[in-house]
Amino acid sequence: MQEPTINALVSPEGSLEILSNHEVSRLKDRSQGGLYRLFRQCALAVLNTGVETDDCKALMECHADFDVRLVPQPRGLKLELINAPAHAFVDGEMLRGIREHLFSVLRDIIYSHSIPQSAAGFRRDDPEDLTNLVFHVLRNARVLEPGRQPDLVVCWGGHSISQDEYQYSKEVGHQLGLRSLSIITGCGPGAMKGPMKGATIAHAKQRVKNGRYIGITEPGIIGAEAPNPIVNELVIMPDIEKRLEAFIRCGHGVIVFPGGVGTAEEILYLLGILLHPDNADLPFPVVFTGEKENAEYFEMIDKFIRNALGDEAASKYEIIIDDPVRVAQTMKKGMKEVETFRRAMQDAYYFNWMLKIDPVFQLPFHPNHDNMRALELHRDQPVHLLAANLRKAFSGIVAGNVKEDGIRQVQSKGPFEIAGDPTLIKPLEAMLAQFVAQNRMKLPGSSAYRPSYRIVSGAA
Amino acid sequence: MQEPTINALVSPEGSLEILSNHEVSRLKDRSQGGLYRLFRQCALAVLNTGVETDDCKALMECHADFDVRLVPQPRGLKLELINAPAHAFVDGEMLRGIREHLFSVLRDIIYSHSIPQSAAGFRRDDPEDLTNLVFHVLRNARVLEPGRQPDLVVCWGGHSISQDEYQYSKEVGHQLGLRSLSIITGCGPGAMKGPMKGATIAHAKQRVKNGRYIGITEPGIIGAEAPNPIVNELVIMPDIEKRLEAFIRCGHGVIVFPGGVGTAEEILYLLGILLHPDNADLPFPVVFTGEKENAEYFEMIDKFIRNALGDEAASKYEIIIDDPVRVAQTMKKGMKEVETFRRAMQDAYYFNWMLKIDPVFQLPFHPNHDNMRALELHRDQPVHLLAANLRKAFSGIVAGNVKEDGIRQVQSKGPFEIAGDPTLIKPLEAMLAQFVAQNRMKLPGSSAYRPSYRIVSGAA
Amino acid sequence: MQEPTINALVSPEGSLEILSNHEVSRLKDRSQGGLYRLFRQCALAVLNTGVETDDCKALMECHADFDVRLVPQPRGLKLELINAPAHAFVDGEMLRGIREHLFSVLRDIIYSHSIPQSAAGFRRDDPEDLTNLVFHVLRNARVLEPGRQPDLVVCWGGHSISQDEYQYSKEVGHQLGLRSLSIITGCGPGAMKGPMKGATIAHAKQRVKNGRYIGITEPGIIGAEAPNPIVNELVIMPDIEKRLEAFIRCGHGVIVFPGGVGTAEEILYLLGILLHPDNADLPFPVVFTGEKENAEYFEMIDKFIRNALGDEAASKYEIIIDDPVRVAQTMKKGMKEVETFRRAMQDAYYFNWMLKIDPVFQLPFHPNHDNMRALELHRDQPVHLLAANLRKAFSGIVAGNVKEDGIRQVQSKGPFEIAGDPTLIKPLEAMLAQFVAQNRMKLPGSSAYRPSYRIVSGAA
Amino acid sequence: MQEPTINALVSPEGSLEILSNHEVSRLKDRSQGGLYRLFRQCALAVLNTGVETDDCKALMECHADFDVRLVPQPRGLKLELINAPAHAFVDGEMLRGIREHLFSVLRDIIYSHSIPQSAAGFRRDDPEDLTNLVFHVLRNARVLEPGRQPDLVVCWGGHSISQDEYQYSKEVGHQLGLRSLSIITGCGPGAMKGPMKGATIAHAKQRVKNGRYIGITEPGIIGAEAPNPIVNELVIMPDIEKRLEAFIRCGHGVIVFPGGVGTAEEILYLLGILLHPDNADLPFPVVFTGEKENAEYFEMIDKFIRNALGDEAASKYEIIIDDPVRVAQTMKKGMKEVETFRRAMQDAYYFNWMLKIDPVFQLPFHPNHDNMRALELHRDQPVHLLAANLRKAFSGIVAGNVKEDGIRQVQSKGPFEIAGDPTLIKPLEAMLAQFVAQNRMKLPGSSAYRPSYRIVSGAA
Repeated sequence: MQEPTINALVSPEGSLEILSNHEVSRLKDRSQGGLYRLFRQCALAVLNTGVETDDCKALMECHADFDVRLVPQPRGLKLELINAPAHAFVDGEMLRGIREHLFSVLRDIIYSHSIPQSAAGFRRDDPEDLTNLVFHVLRNARVLEPGRQPDLVVCWGGHSISQDEYQYSKEVGHQLGLRSLSIITGCGPGAMKGPMKGATIAHAKQRVKNGRYIGITEPGIIGAEAPNPIVNELVIMPDIEKRLEAFIRCGHGVIVFPGGVGTAEEILYLLGILLHPDNADLPFPVVFTGEKENAEYFEMIDKFIRNALGDEAASKYEIIIDDPVRVAQTMKKGMKEVETFRRAMQDAYYFNWMLKIDPVFQLPFHPNHDNMRALELHRDQPVHLLAANLRKAFSGIVAGNVKEDGIRQVQSKGPFEIAGDPTLIKPLEAMLAQFVAQNRMKLPGSSAYRPSYRIVSGAA
Repeated sequence: MQEPTINALVSPEGSLEILSNHEVSRLKDRSQGGLYRLFRQCALAVLNTGVETDDCKALMECHADFDVRLVPQPRGLKLELINAPAHAFVDGEMLRGIREHLFSVLRDIIYSHSIPQSAAGFRRDDPEDLTNLVFHVLRNARVLEPGRQPDLVVCWGGHSISQDEYQYSKEVGHQLGLRSLSIITGCGPGAMKGPMKGATIAHAKQRVKNGRYIGITEPGIIGAEAPNPIVNELVIMPDIEKRLEAFIRCGHGVIVFPGGVGTAEEILYLLGILLHPDNADLPFPVVFTGEKENAEYFEMIDKFIRNALGDEAASKYEIIIDDPVRVAQTMKKGMKEVETFRRAMQDAYYFNWMLKIDPVFQLPFHPNHDNMRALELHRDQPVHLLAANLRKAFSGIVAGNVKEDGIRQVQSKGPFEIAGDPTLIKPLEAMLAQFVAQNRMKLPGSSAYRPSYRIVSGAA
Repeated sequence: MQEPTINALVSPEGSLEILSNHEVSRLKDRSQGGLYRLFRQCALAVLNTGVETDDCKALMECHADFDVRLVPQPRGLKLELINAPAHAFVDGEMLRGIREHLFSVLRDIIYSHSIPQSAAGFRRDDPEDLTNLVFHVLRNARVLEPGRQPDLVVCWGGHSISQDEYQYSKEVGHQLGLRSLSIITGCGPGAMKGPMKGATIAHAKQRVKNGRYIGITEPGIIGAEAPNPIVNELVIMPDIEKRLEAFIRCGHGVIVFPGGVGTAEEILYLLGILLHPDNADLPFPVVFTGEKENAEYFEMIDKFIRNALGDEAASKYEIIIDDPVRVAQTMKKGMKEVETFRRAMQDAYYFNWMLKIDPVFQLPFHPNHDNMRALELHRDQPVHLLAANLRKAFSGIVAGNVKEDGIRQVQSKGPFEIAGDPTLIKPLEAMLAQFVAQNRMKLPGSSAYRPSYRIVSGAA
Repeated sequence: MQEPTINALVSPEGSLEILSNHEVSRLKDRSQGGLYRLFRQCALAVLNTGVETDDCKALMECHADFDVRLVPQPRGLKLELINAPAHAFVDGEMLRGIREHLFSVLRDIIYSHSIPQSAAGFRRDDPEDLTNLVFHVLRNARVLEPGRQPDLVVCWGGHSISQDEYQYSKEVGHQLGLRSLSIITGCGPGAMKGPMKGATIAHAKQRVKNGRYIGITEPGIIGAEAPNPIVNELVIMPDIEKRLEAFIRCGHGVIVFPGGVGTAEEILYLLGILLHPDNADLPFPVVFTGEKENAEYFEMIDKFIRNALGDEAASKYEIIIDDPVRVAQTMKKGMKEVETFRRAMQDAYYFNWMLKIDPVFQLPFHPNHDNMRALELHRDQPVHLLAANLRKAFSGIVAGNVKEDGIRQVQSKGPFEIAGDPTLIKPLEAMLAQFVAQNRMKLPGSSAYRPSYRIVSGAA
C-alpha cells in the first residue's frame, strides 16, 4: 500500500493549546521516557481518517517515514508534518476537523503523562484516585460542561458492519439529533460514524449549534479506529479501562448497535457495573437496537447474557428492533430521569460521581498469553466479577485482532488460549464463531480472518 | 389523503421579526387586497416539508381546514397554527428549521407587499427599479452579507430524480462543502436537497459554522417544493422572474444537475442573459454535471442548446461527467475569478450589479393559453430574445404541471399549445418527450403524467 | 475657530449597512429633493463630537469645506471624508464609535426619506400611521429587541450643567448600571453623557455585555448635541415630535436631571401625555433628581407644573434629592411593574403600543414668529392641551437657541414673542429667567446669552 | 469597624470552574496541609472590594465570623458565604465581577497547590522550572491568549495617591484604551484602578469588546489591595516573586505612576532584570509618568536609581510629565517593536520566554528581622544583584506595612532594621522619608504611619 503523502505546516486555529518549554521538551524527547513516539503514533492515526484499515501494526509500518515536529511560533505552536497521508487534505489544505484532532492528541498526551499521576496525591491503584484522574483528563479536554443538561448518548457497536446496519445507525442518530441529543462514540467507522452523521443533519434542521460529537479513544486502538472528522471533541484516554469509565461517567445513556468482540467487551463492562448493588437505583437507560435483520443477533446476545450473568442482568437493557423513533424517545425519556435523579441527589450532570465502579473494572488488564489463560471464567464468584472476567477475555481478543502489541504477540506465540467452565465458554465459543461468520471481527480486507483466540477445554 | 394534524403556538426564537400594528392588520386582512390568503398558503407549504407531493392545488384542497393566526406577545409575535401537518413536528414540538421558515414567509410577504413597490420611486416596469427591488427584498431577508467573499454556488436540477442522481448531487455538495463553499437552491427535494445535505456534513468536518443553505422560492411554487429544514435562509420572491434574478445576482456560479422543464427554464434564462454582449467579459462559472448514466442526458441538452442558440451559447458552460471533485474545484476556481473581477471593478461581492439583464427577462410572464400560443419561437430575432421566449415556454409548462393557477387552467381548457419554427419546436418536442419518459416532469405519484402542453405545427 | 481637519476613507466595520444603487443615487443627489445636504450636515455633526459648541449654524459655517462621498466597494460601502474635524480621530484613525454613528446617520436618513412615508398606506396626518412610522424607523435601526425585558431608562436633562451636576448624573448612571439597566438619552454632553459613562463602568463590573447606550436625536439638533462615542445605538428621527414619541414608546421609565428649555419641553410633553385619561392606569416611572444644591431648582419646576397643570400632573413624578441608589431602585421597581403590566395586557416590551398620544403631540410644530405668537396659552382648554401648547413654547425657544433654522429666524426678525394668560406666562417668564441666570440656556461660550424669546402681555 | 454582612449562595455563572471530589476535599480541609484557611482568607479579601483599608491583619480580625463553604450542585459548584461584607452586593445580589473573582481565587489556589509543583518534574529551586510554573499558572487562568498581538501595558504605582494623581492615571488609561491597549495591574485602588477605569470608557468608544483588565496578585497582599470589580481576569500567584515574574513575562511594556515602597520594589525588580546583559537588546518600553506636580517626585526616583545602579539603569526608562497622549503613543510604538522582535525571534507574543531572569529574582525572599538585617546593600557586587537586594529591602517594608505576617512581626519585635553602605542607605532613608511625608506608605487611616523599618548605620 503506497499512498500519496503531503508535507505541511499546520496551526491550531480554533484550539487553545499552548505549551510550556517544559512540555515541548517532553514531546520532542525520543528517549524511552519521552513522549515523542506516542505522539507520532497517535498523530499518524488521526491523519489516517477515512482509510479502511483496522490493523494498527500495518498502519505504522506502512508510514515508517512519517514524522511530526513542534514548531514554536509567535502566535502559538505549529506542527510540521512530514509525509502525512494525503487523505487528510483537501486541495493541499488539511481538513479543519483533523487539524483539531491533532491538537487534541497533543493536549491529552501531555496532560495524561505529566500532570495527574504526579505526587499531588494521586495513587494509580486507588479506585477513587483513578476516577479523579478520569475526571481531570476529561476536564482538561473541556468535555465536562457545567451548565448543560443531560444529553449525551453513548453509541456502541461494530466498526465492521453491513451497509444496511450502517444506514440504520444513521437513522437512529438522526432521530436522536431531532430531539437535540448529542453523541459519544469510540471513534472509528461503522456504528461509531453513522449516528454522528445522522445527528449532524438533524442538528442542522433543529438549528442546534452546540451539538456534540464526542470521540473517546486510547493510544492502543486509535490506529484501528481513526476518528471521523465530524468528531468535534476528541479525547485520548490513557488506556481502555479509563476510556470505558469515561464513557459511562460522562454519557447519560447507552445505545448498543450490532458489533463484534469490542462491542461485547463494552456490554460486559456496562452490565458488570450496573449489577453492582450500590447502582441498583441509579437511572441509566440502555437500549440494544438494530434493523429487522438484526433481531436474531440480539437474541443471541440476550441469551448469552442471561446464561452467563442471569436474568437480572437482562433487566438492565431494552431491545428495540427496527424503530429508530422509539429508540430516540426512550433515550430522551431516560435523560429526563437521569436529570431528575441527579438534581435530587445534588450530583453533577456532567460527571456521574455516584456510579459505583469496582476496582476490578478499573485496573488495567494487560492481555498476554499468561493473563488470558489465567482468566477466572467460572461461576464460583459474584456475578459482577464474572462479568469483569468475561470483559477481559473480549478485551484480549480485541487486542489480538487490531492492537499493535496484541497482534505482535499473537503473531509470535499463536492465538490466546481461553479456558473455563464449559457452560460459559461453550456459548462464548459459539458467539465468537457467529461474529467471525458475520464479518464482525475485522474489516473485510485482503485475507480471511485468522482468529486471535482459541477456546480450550479444562478449567482455568 | 388524511394526514394527522397538530395545533400549536410557535414563537420566532432566533428570528428578529417584529411587526407593527399596521403590518399585523394587513396580514390579518382576509379581503381581496389583504395578505391573509397568501400568507396562509405559503405557511402551509412550508409546513408540508418532507411530504412527497408537487401538486400545489391538491395540497391546498387537502388542508382546507388549516389556519394560521398572529398572536402579539410581550416578547414579540407568536403564530397560532390550527390543523398543521404533523410532519413539521417532532414529539409535538415544531422543528426549529421550519419555525424559522414560517417567520421568513411572514417577513417576505409583508416586505414585498408593502414597502418597495411604494411611491418612494419604484416603478414596476423600469428595469433598474426591478433590480433594486430584488436587492431590497434580499437585503431585508439579510441574504446580502457585506463582508463575505464569493462562495455561493447555485444548484439547479430536477425535484424528481433517481436515487443514484440524488446520491451524486449529495457527493457534489460534499465536495463543495469541503472547499467551504455554500449552496443556493430553489428549495424542494431532489437536486435541491442533495447538495445541501452533502455540504452540511462537509461543513461539519471543516468546522464551517456559517455555512449557508439558501432557498429562494416564490408563492406559486413553494407548495410544490417545500423547503427542506436544512435551508437556513429562506427567501420568498414575489414571482419567478425576480426569483431567477435573485439567483444569478447573489450566486457566484451555477451547477446544473439533470432535471425537467423547470431546469430547462433556468438554463435558458441563464444562457439568454450571459449571451448579452454587455456580459461577454463577466466571469460566471457554469457547470452541467451528473453521474455516468447522465452523459446522454447532457448530450441531448447540449445539442438542443447548440441548435436553438448556437455554439456561442454552449461556450458558456462546461459539462463534467462523474467527477464531483473536479466540479467543486472548477467552482472554487471560478469564485476566485469572480472575486478578482469584482474587486477590480469595485463591484459588490454580495450582489452582481454589473450583470446586464434585458427587461424581457424581468417582466413577469403570465402563462395562459393565449400567451403560450403567442410565444415567438422563431429565428428572426436576436438569439437572447429567442432564449427568453423559450424560457417562457418552459415556464408555462412548469406552471401547468405544478402551480395551482396553471393546473386549474389546463384542467379547464386542456393543454397549453406551443407553436413555432419546426426547426425549433421539433427538438423541443423530442426533449420534452424524454423528460416525460425519464419521469422528470412530476414526482412519481398515483397516476401517469398528463402533459400540460401540446406542440402544434404552424408558425406562432 | 480653525480646527485641524483630516481626510479619510472609512468603512462600516461592524455595521450591516449596504445600499442599493437607487439609494446611493438619492444620497448623492445635491438637488432640492436629494438627500446629500441633509446627510452632509448630520455627518458633520456626528464628527464634531467632543467639541463644546451648541450652535448648529456656527458649526455648519465653520466647516464649509467639509464634504462626504459614498464610495462603493466589493465588500460594502465606504465613506470618503474631506476636511473632517480631527477630534473624531485617534492617531489618524477614526474612533470606531463615531464610525458607527456615521453609518447610523446614513441608515436613518435613507430609511426615513424613502420607505415609510410612501404609498404603502402611510398618511402623514393619521396618528396611528405616525406611530407606526416611529415604530418602523426604530425597527429599521434595530432598536426594538423582541426578547429583552424592560430595562431602558430615559435620561433627560441639560446639556449645559455644572461639574457637580455632571458628577451626580454619572453616579446615578452608575447605580442604574449596577442594576443592569440601560440608558437612552438625546445624545450630547452634560446630563446626556454622565449617566452613560457611569453605566459603562457599572456594566463592566457586572459583566453586562449587552448594555445599551441609545441616543435618539433629530437632524435639527444633532449639530448642537453631537452624540458621545459611547452611544452604541444612534437613531436619527425625522423631527422633534417623532423623537419625543420614540423616547417614551421604547423607554420604560424616565429620569429628569436639571436642565433648561429642552428639558422643560420634554417634561411638558411627558406630563401632557401621562395626563390623558386613557393612560391613567399605565405604569410609567418618572423621577426628577439632582444633588442637594438642586433641591430649589426642582421646587421651582414642581411649582410651575402645579400652577399650570394642577396637582394631578405632579402626581405623575417623584422628586428624589441626592440619593442615586434610591433613584436606581425606584427605576428598577418601576421596570418590574411595567413588565407585569405589559405581560398581563399582552403588549410588547419593546414598544409601548398602549400609550395613548393625542395627535396634538404628534403633528410637527414649526417654530416661527407667527406660530409662536399664536400659541394658545390660556386655561380655557383641557389640561393636556395646555401642556401641549406650553411644550411648543419651549420647543420654539430651543430652536431659537441652538437650531440652525431657529437661530436664523431670530437673527433676522428678533426674539419670538410669547403671549397668553398672565397667570401662566408670568411664572413662565420667571422660570426662563432662572434658566438664563443658571447658564442652562446655552453652553458657556464666547458671549453672554441673548434671549431668543420675549414674553409679551396680552392674550394670544 | 462593624460592617453589615450578608449570607449568600453564589454560582460561578460564566466561569468554567468545575472541581473533582479530590479537589473539593482539599479545599474543605481545615488541617495544616489543607487549603481551607488560605481560600477563606483570599475569598474575604476579594469580597472586601471598595473598602478603604490596606491592613490585612485588621481585615481578617474584623471578619472573624466570615465563612465560605463549597456546595456541589448538578450544574456545577456553588459557594455558600456566611457573613460576607455587604459591599460586595447590590440589592442583595453579589456583583458579577466579584463573583468571578471568587471563582478565580478557587481556581488558582487549587492549581498552584496541587498540580505544578508535583513530581512531574518540577523542582522548586530550578530557575527554568520556576518560569514554567509561572507559565502553567497563567495558562490555567487562561491569561495566555495565543492569537493575540502584543497589547498588555503593566501599570504600576501607589495604592495611596492623591485625587489629582488618580485623575491623571485615569486619563492615561483612557489614552491607552483609545489605542486599543489593555491593562495589567496588581489590583487594588489608586494607580491600579485609575487606568482600568479610563480604559473601560475608551474601549466602549472604540467598541473594543475584548478589552483586558488583568489583575495579578498574591495571597499575602490581596487583603490590602482588593481587586476592583472591573478586573476581568484575576490571577493569584503563589508569592510576590512569581507575581512580579508574571507581570513582566506577559506584559509587553510598563508604565510607572507615583507610588511608595511597593512601586519602588517593582522598579528595582524591573531594572535589575533589564540590566542583565542577555536582555540588552530586548525591546521593553518603560515609561515613568505623572502630572506636573509629580515632576519632582520622579526626579528623586531618577536620582536614586542613577546613584545606586548607574546611568545605564536610567537608560531603560523614559520620564514623561503631564502628557497622557505621548505616554500612550510611546507604549503603542513600543508594542510594535516588541511584536517585530518576537516575530523575528519566533518567540511567543503571550509569554516573554526570552527574557533572562536571574534566580536571585525568582527565589522567594521571606522578610523577617534576620533576613532584612542581612541584606547585602553594598557596591561590591554586580549592579543587577544590588538591584535584587534593594528590591528585597523594599519588599520587606511592604510586608511590614500591609501584609498580615509582616505586620505581626513588626508588632512583636519592632521595625525591621536595614543596614549597608551609607552611600546607598542614606538616599534610601531620604526617599522613604519622602514617601512617608507624601502619605504613600499607607492609606490615610485612623492614625499616623508607624514605620515598619529602621535604617541603621554600619555595614550589613
